[in-house]
Amino acid sequence: MTAAGSKASWLLILALLLTLLPGLTLAEDPTWRQVDPDNLVFMELTEGPVIIELTPLFAPKTVKQFRRLVQDHFYDGLGFYRVIDGFVAQGGDGSDLGELSDVPLIKAEFEREWSAEFPYTPVQKPDLFAPETGFIDGFAVGRAPAEDKVWLTHCPGIVAMARNEDPDSSRTDFYIVIGQAPRYLDRNMNVFGRVIHGMEAVQRIRRGPATDNGIIRDDLATSRIRSMRLGSDIADEERGASYVMDTSSPGFADLLRDRRERKQRFFHHQPPQALDVCQVPMAGRVTR
Amino acid sequence: MTAAGSKASWLLILALLLTLLPGLTLAEDPTWRQVDPDNLVFMELTEGPVIIELTPLFAPKTVKQFRRLVQDHFYDGLGFYRVIDGFVAQGGDGSDLGELSDVPLIKAEFEREWSAEFPYTPVQKPDLFAPETGFIDGFAVGRAPAEDKVWLTHCPGIVAMARNEDPDSSRTDFYIVIGQAPRYLDRNMNVFGRVIHGMEAVQRIRRGPATDNGIIRDDLATSRIRSMRLGSDIADEERGASYVMDTSSPGFADLLRDRRERKQRFFHHQPPQALDVCQVPMAGRVTR
Repeated sequence: MTAAGSKASWLLILALLLTLLPGLTLAEDPTWRQVDPDNLVFMELTEGPVIIELTPLFAPKTVKQFRRLVQDHFYDGLGFYRVIDGFVAQGGDGSDLGELSDVPLIKAEFEREWSAEFPYTPVQKPDLFAPETGFIDGFAVGRAPAEDKVWLTHCPGIVAMARNEDPDSSRTDFYIVIGQAPRYLDRNMNVFGRVIHGMEAVQRIRRGPATDNGIIRDDLATSRIRSMRLGSDIADEERGASYVMDTSSPGFADLLRDRRERKQRFFHHQPPQALDVCQVPMAGRVTR
Repeated sequence: MTAAGSKASWLLILALLLTLLPGLTLAEDPTWRQVDPDNLVFMELTEGPVIIELTPLFAPKTVKQFRRLVQDHFYDGLGFYRVIDGFVAQGGDGSDLGELSDVPLIKAEFEREWSAEFPYTPVQKPDLFAPETGFIDGFAVGRAPAEDKVWLTHCPGIVAMARNEDPDSSRTDFYIVIGQAPRYLDRNMNVFGRVIHGMEAVQRIRRGPATDNGIIRDDLATSRIRSMRLGSDIADEERGASYVMDTSSPGFADLLRDRRERKQRFFHHQPPQALDVCQVPMAGRVTR
C-alpha cells in the first residue's frame, strides 16, 4: 500500500458526502437551500450546540406550540431524563411521566394527505416499512399512495413529541432519535423537526441505565438544555445562515443515484440497488 | 394525565427491552449466555470502557490477527483518526491511509458457507438488503439461501477491518459503526466483532469535520484507545462476567414476536409486521 493509495482510501469513496460544486458558495450552489429562520431552533446543550429545523408542513399544530414554548423559555434548564442508547433521548419537564402541567395537549398529526404539489423525490419502493419512501423539503418520508397518505419517518436525528396511550396526549416532552431508525413508530407520533447540525452533541447526551428503561434519577447526571431560541429571534450576525440539501435539486438526485448504483471498484460484491431513506447523509452546514 | 398514567408511559411500552425473568440471575436465565473470555476484548477509551465480542465463526483469520495485535499492545495509545457522525469511527495506526506497516495483510472473509448446524433464528424475509436476515450467536446476519451464503450485517456497534480497493488489504485499522446501518457494505468487509457494552462511550468519540471526510488532523483532538486487553488475559475478579442474549433461546423468540406484532394499545396505527435486524436492542450485561 503506497501513500498514493491513501487518496483512494475506502471511507473517501464510501461516504459519498455531498460537497460543494467547485467555485460555488453554499448560497450559490443550487444543491443547497437556506432554511427560513422561523423554522430554526437553536438548542444549547451542556454537550454543545444543536440546530433543529421545524416542519410546519407536516406538523403545524406541534410546531406552533413548540415555537411558543421556545419563546417562553420553557425548555431552558430542563434535562434529558430518559435516554436509551441506540433508541431515543427524551427531554422536557417530565409531564409525559405524569407531572402536573397546564400546557395544552396537542392533537395527533401523525400523517397527512398527499398533495401533488409536494416537492417529492422518491427513494425506495417498496421499503420494509412503507409502500415507498422519499424526501420532501429535506425530510425523509414514507408514502402510501393507495391511502393518499404521507408521513415523516423515524430516522436518526428526527425530533418528535412524546405521548401516552392517548394519541392526543402530546404536550411538551420531546425525543430525538439517536439510534437505528425505530420505524415502527412511524404514523404514531407527532414528528415535527430534525437535527440539521450538532448530532455529535446529541450523541453525547448522558444515557440512562438499560435495566431501568433509560430513566436518569440523578439530577446531577442529567444532560441539560441551557437554552433554546427561535432562529427568527436571533440577530442575523449571530445566527448566521443554515443550509440543508435541497432534496428536489438535480445534485441531490445524482447523490441518490450514486449511492444506489455503487459503481466504484471498491465493491467486490455489488450491493443490492436499494436505499434506506434513513441512511442518506443529510447533515446541514452553517456559515457565519 | 395522572401519575398512574406514568406507568404506561410510552417508552416503557415501546422499548420492550428484555429484562430478567423474575427471581433469576443472569447466569441462571436461559435467555442470556455468558461470553467466552477468549472472545472478549476490553477496550479502554478516553471516553470510557467498551467491551467487544469477537466472532471466530465468521472471521477466523481476522480474529486471529486482532487477538495477536491486542496481546502485543499494538492499539494502546492509538486514536480514532477518521470519524463521521452517523457513519463510522475508524481507528488504528493509519496504515489504511498508506502509513508504512509490516503487519501482514488479511485475506477477505466477507461471507461464509451456510451450515445447517448454525443456531440460526430467522428475523425478516425478504429484507431490503438480503433475501433474509436473522441472528447467529447474537450476531445479526444476512443470508442468501440460493447461494448457500451467510454474512455479518453492518448494524450499529459492529466492528470491522478497514481496507483499500483490494479485497485482501485489511491489516490493522478498524471501524465501529456509529450510525444508521450502512448495509451496502455487507459482504464487502471483514466484520469480526460487535460492541456488547459501552456504545455510549463509542458515541462520544470525537467526530471529524464532514467537509474533510471525517479526518481529524489535530492529534490533541483525537479520541484515544488507552488500552486493549483480551478477556482471557484478565483475572476473573477484574474481568467479571459478560452476558449477551442467547438468540436461539425461547425468551429471545418471544422478544422478536412482541416486536413484530406490537399488540400494545399505544399503537394507534398498527406498524407493518416487519423487523429491521439492526433495530433489535442487543446490549449485553456485565456482572462483577
